[in-house]
Amino acid sequence: MKGYVQVYTGNGKGKTTAALGLGLRAAGAGLRVYVAQFVKGMKYSELDILEKLSDSITIRQYGRDCFIFKKPEEEDIRAAREGLKEVREVMCSGKYDVIVLDEANIATYYNLFSVDDLLDFIRSKPEDIELVITGRMADPMVIEEADLVTEMKEIKHYYQKGIQARDGIEK
Amino acid sequence: MKGYVQVYTGNGKGKTTAALGLGLRAAGAGLRVYVAQFVKGMKYSELDILEKLSDSITIRQYGRDCFIFKKPEEEDIRAAREGLKEVREVMCSGKYDVIVLDEANIATYYNLFSVDDLLDFIRSKPEDIELVITGRMADPMVIEEADLVTEMKEIKHYYQKGIQARDGIEK
Repeated sequence: MKGYVQVYTGNGKGKTTAALGLGLRAAGAGLRVYVAQFVKGMKYSELDILEKLSDSITIRQYGRDCFIFKKPEEEDIRAAREGLKEVREVMCSGKYDVIVLDEANIATYYNLFSVDDLLDFIRSKPEDIELVITGRMADPMVIEEADLVTEMKEIKHYYQKGIQARDGIEK
Repeated sequence: MKGYVQVYTGNGKGKTTAALGLGLRAAGAGLRVYVAQFVKGMKYSELDILEKLSDSITIRQYGRDCFIFKKPEEEDIRAAREGLKEVREVMCSGKYDVIVLDEANIATYYNLFSVDDLLDFIRSKPEDIELVITGRMADPMVIEEADLVTEMKEIKHYYQKGIQARDGIEK
């Protein structure tokens, strides 16, 4: 089966959730899924359940706790670059059918790794693998390279009313 | 915990997937989730896995096989209306924390039930329940009533190149 490159970007909700949901759907169909989370080292509630499905879904985190609102440090950069390299080996190992690079766009935006690194990664994709890339601020060259691009666009958000992220709903 | 009304709409990918992913995350945090799928009676791959989590997630389908591209028939209308009524009872039973009305927007667009029916449903939401509504063509009044609205906007789609939906990826 030919695989494609999907990008979920934009400032709205649902990018990571859609990618994990896609991973879940793929696992349900017997495909093997590898999810690489960049930037955030946070423990999301969904990981608890996805781990129960670990025969089909593997999740690795290549980043520390969300640094997004501050300047990345050496450790963030090293974790992301080594992570991307590791995932490339994983992708080329033939052990997985679906690879998710969660928050890879924001990783390029903060130059944890470069857009060129990400483009190289995309171009090295074996034909039969589905590659899913998420994160705000997708670079136009990444969008150009993708087959399917969806922008999650925030139309209205209760955070604007000052409500915090809640367990099980946002985190 | 106060619950809100979330809407995922737009012509892009990821609306149902984001809602199911949100359900998964909520279940992982110990919340009880009820997913009502309107319009489509299709068997999605992700349901197979979600069913394994049936202690936390309940899924009911209130529609026949995807009629979307043809005129709805009496049977579609009855299934949707009775479904909405049933889910309202479920919502008010106190047995669930998160209610997903998947494709309810498209159900109003085809007048399977009316926008007023959906608005009544939203307004009857107990305060502590999170209500998630998906589907293209969300009515402006539904958007007005929601706390969080995300538009999944199609920027680029390989279907435009004539590729069919693939098992485990789109269906």
